[in-house]
Amino acid sequence: MQILLTVAYDGTTYAGWQRQTNGIAVQQKLEEALSVLTAHPVVVRAASRTDAGVHALGQRAAFFSDALKIPLDKFPYVLNGYLPPDISVSAAEVVPDDFNPRYRACYKTYQYHYYNAPTPNPLLRRYSAFVPQTLDVGVMNQCAAYFIGSHDFRAFCATGGNGTDGIKSTIRRVYACEVSRQGSLITLTITGSGFLYNMVRIIAGTVLNAGLGRLASENVPEIIEARERARAGKTMPPEGLTLMQVSYEDYSAQPTNH
Amino acid sequence: MQILLTVAYDGTTYAGWQRQTNGIAVQQKLEEALSVLTAHPVVVRAASRTDAGVHALGQRAAFFSDALKIPLDKFPYVLNGYLPPDISVSAAEVVPDDFNPRYRACYKTYQYHYYNAPTPNPLLRRYSAFVPQTLDVGVMNQCAAYFIGSHDFRAFCATGGNGTDGIKSTIRRVYACEVSRQGSLITLTITGSGFLYNMVRIIAGTVLNAGLGRLASENVPEIIEARERARAGKTMPPEGLTLMQVSYEDYSAQPTNH
Repeated sequence: MQILLTVAYDGTTYAGWQRQTNGIAVQQKLEEALSVLTAHPVVVRAASRTDAGVHALGQRAAFFSDALKIPLDKFPYVLNGYLPPDISVSAAEVVPDDFNPRYRACYKTYQYHYYNAPTPNPLLRRYSAFVPQTLDVGVMNQCAAYFIGSHDFRAFCATGGNGTDGIKSTIRRVYACEVSRQGSLITLTITGSGFLYNMVRIIAGTVLNAGLGRLASENVPEIIEARERARAGKTMPPEGLTLMQVSYEDYSAQPTNH
Repeated sequence: MQILLTVAYDGTTYAGWQRQTNGIAVQQKLEEALSVLTAHPVVVRAASRTDAGVHALGQRAAFFSDALKIPLDKFPYVLNGYLPPDISVSAAEVVPDDFNPRYRACYKTYQYHYYNAPTPNPLLRRYSAFVPQTLDVGVMNQCAAYFIGSHDFRAFCATGGNGTDGIKSTIRRVYACEVSRQGSLITLTITGSGFLYNMVRIIAGTVLNAGLGRLASENVPEIIEARERARAGKTMPPEGLTLMQVSYEDYSAQPTNH
């Protein structure tokens, strides 16, 4: 049977989700723990192949096993005992054998965190990008709204990398995109049907430019239409990015508090 | 002249504030950076000698130098360039030569963070204690209120350690003590004239017992009066503790939003 896990991790010390020849991947740690618990080799497939340094609170990953001796509701607690403290599984459920955790995903939510103060906060340095300049959060939120809708996001896609492997279309639908501030922490929250390679980090760089007064928000549609990577903002560093949620239900079926 | 710094640090990898024979201390890193910038040996004296693993956002530390070539308002930015990323200085000001950053402190505020969910959150593991059991935050807040006032806190003091060196009285005044929840994160915020060795962590353990239903809040006065360490809760782990603020003004002079 196939089992779908909900996984959280601190990506700081990992070479990303996917197994690498250089560096330790989150996938590897999870497969090692599952192999011990099932007593057979395990391959996990994730909803999103997050980059080196990117975090997750709601990653989903599936594997096959008929050798689980632990009741499924107890399984996360046992599994966490075999995982390092920077990886934690919060849920396990049975899914059909033909369920693909990546292609079945209806939408994903990411957050990008900027720490905006004159000097860095050592307690947030692993989970945010430090921006000492004055930022206009209202303008950032206006800019973010321009990304909502179905667009060709070619200008917001890095060449190479996991996200574009075998992907022909660069059209994606963004359902929601907003920016809010809580004290010195500014958060960009974006929900979409899917994201191209580095798309959220490039959008985060573009929204930052608006907040710095370097970009007029109303120029975003033109930047999207030009489909030139150079017109968009820079790729923000990975530590600010967290995969919050992967949903297998239509976005229209979501609770209204979203 | 004497200069007073406001210092933040992630205590995870440090042996505490104070220079140690075993392990690297925050004090040492700060003194090394200041010695380079002033071109003379520097000793810093802190308001609070935080334990190994304890964090700070508002530590204060003072040193003497007549060799500063950088304007004081620019000094934190330059100094941060000489500090590791887990230590950051946010402010520098001149204080009188007879100013003692520890004994002149009028009150200090600490926060203790509990992460309360069925499974751990890897992004908060360095900055909170993981508590999987169900907690009643209302009861925790009621319990916390019993600590307010001037009491002999002998029952809430670990033997040995920095906090009791040369201190004859175990009477301390707690100005405010409350517990609140934001999602899965529960925060105990305590402000007092001073704290005995491990006092906040033992209060945090006692308040946790109330939240778990293991202690009736109304028994706290009796536990305080008994002055026996064994009657109070366990010492909570250091990673949940953060020194938020040290104030050199009377508590009565503080803004009303406290």
